[in-house]
Amino acid sequence: MAEKKNIRFILAYDGSRYHGWQRQKNGLSIQEVIEDHLYLMTRERISLVASGRTDAGVHALNQVCHFITTTTLDPLTIKKGLNSLLPNDILIKQSDYMPLEFHARYSARSKTYEYRLINRPEPDIFLRAYSWQIQKRLNLEEMKRCLAALTGRHDFSAFKSTGSKNKNPVREMLRAELERPEPGRINLIFEANGFLRHMVRNIVGTVLDVGLEKLSHSDFLDILTSKDRERAGIKAPPRGLYLSYVAY
Amino acid sequence: MAEKKNIRFILAYDGSRYHGWQRQKNGLSIQEVIEDHLYLMTRERISLVASGRTDAGVHALNQVCHFITTTTLDPLTIKKGLNSLLPNDILIKQSDYMPLEFHARYSARSKTYEYRLINRPEPDIFLRAYSWQIQKRLNLEEMKRCLAALTGRHDFSAFKSTGSKNKNPVREMLRAELERPEPGRINLIFEANGFLRHMVRNIVGTVLDVGLEKLSHSDFLDILTSKDRERAGIKAPPRGLYLSYVAY
Repeated sequence: MAEKKNIRFILAYDGSRYHGWQRQKNGLSIQEVIEDHLYLMTRERISLVASGRTDAGVHALNQVCHFITTTTLDPLTIKKGLNSLLPNDILIKQSDYMPLEFHARYSARSKTYEYRLINRPEPDIFLRAYSWQIQKRLNLEEMKRCLAALTGRHDFSAFKSTGSKNKNPVREMLRAELERPEPGRINLIFEANGFLRHMVRNIVGTVLDVGLEKLSHSDFLDILTSKDRERAGIKAPPRGLYLSYVAY
Repeated sequence: MAEKKNIRFILAYDGSRYHGWQRQKNGLSIQEVIEDHLYLMTRERISLVASGRTDAGVHALNQVCHFITTTTLDPLTIKKGLNSLLPNDILIKQSDYMPLEFHARYSARSKTYEYRLINRPEPDIFLRAYSWQIQKRLNLEEMKRCLAALTGRHDFSAFKSTGSKNKNPVREMLRAELERPEPGRINLIFEANGFLRHMVRNIVGTVLDVGLEKLSHSDFLDILTSKDRERAGIKAPPRGLYLSYVAY
């Protein structure tokens, strides 16, 4: 019988057209598109395991997934073949053999998400599918103070998905920062050992309320410690969110 | 009778969805979309005159157009109203009264086009609709030498649209430069007193053949002086081309 191998992909995708990473009945997923093309190449029904799901419309700069296979095709051949077959909004950036123990989800130590805002009086029409555009002036210093308060271990229930009942809502935030890569652009960077569903987008929506001075810094701290989802701001739209890095 | 006024727009558009600037029977144009929304606001059948047409799929950062109107709505009200009505791939950036003599096409002294290339081993999936992506290494020094040869007055027949019979194919190129705004990105900038149809895209396709070392610098000069369209390279795709500035 053919030897089992573990292959890891690092991949980027534009989530605009997809109902998220995970295969589902109603709507096209990134997982399904890649698995179907892998089947064309290998004639194996392969199951991809990602570092985590991304929701509908969310993008990835460096998602990681692995799969167990007996194919004799080597990783580089698979990468080249897939990239020639896949639609041009999904790109396999790297493809390698890994030890059989490697698991894209369980082996991950931390994940980093990046939320991209455009903040200037005039929209950037070319980035409308790839950012959240805010015309009003933002108080960046107050936003930074809120982000700083997020680092460390917290019960993030205030920022969980509405209606979700997470057994353990405690996560460790390793980094929560505001970067300005160029004038008019703001990136909010979040690295944690794990994220609750919609957590980044709910934090971004609430931090933005502070930037717009609808909420104060102390309101923000109250919301975090209240653990009450009803008090946080709106969920930021998925088009600004990128899974940017997974550390192992 | 109401007084006639001349209003000038400076506008940006993402050309991806459109069959170019100019109103036409088969396919949606940018002109038609704006004129139809102007009608909703003013109840006047307004004709927009642009600095020039852009072809299907070509973008604009700062297209200029004017129209004669008797509306009592002021330019800022028209701008705000239009921007709230228009699809989010068209943006009125500026709206002003101009003297009645101002003509978006005839008053233009020069136009600047920018062609955006991505040049790195790995595609940028988020810019696939907004650039031409070249994976192979390019000889930028040779490309720059070709661009330098384009400045000045030339008969640009070698780079005209296939089959077109332009009465006067002589144009004055004021600027033809290669810029590298960041690693992996190359912008080719062309400023001229006018352009033949498809001229920028035909030049870019031919300069790229020099970058790929399929043609030499002296081949390029031969093509320019031959005035023979059959000898030039392929027409670069519209998605990388931006009308960036019109000088008056």
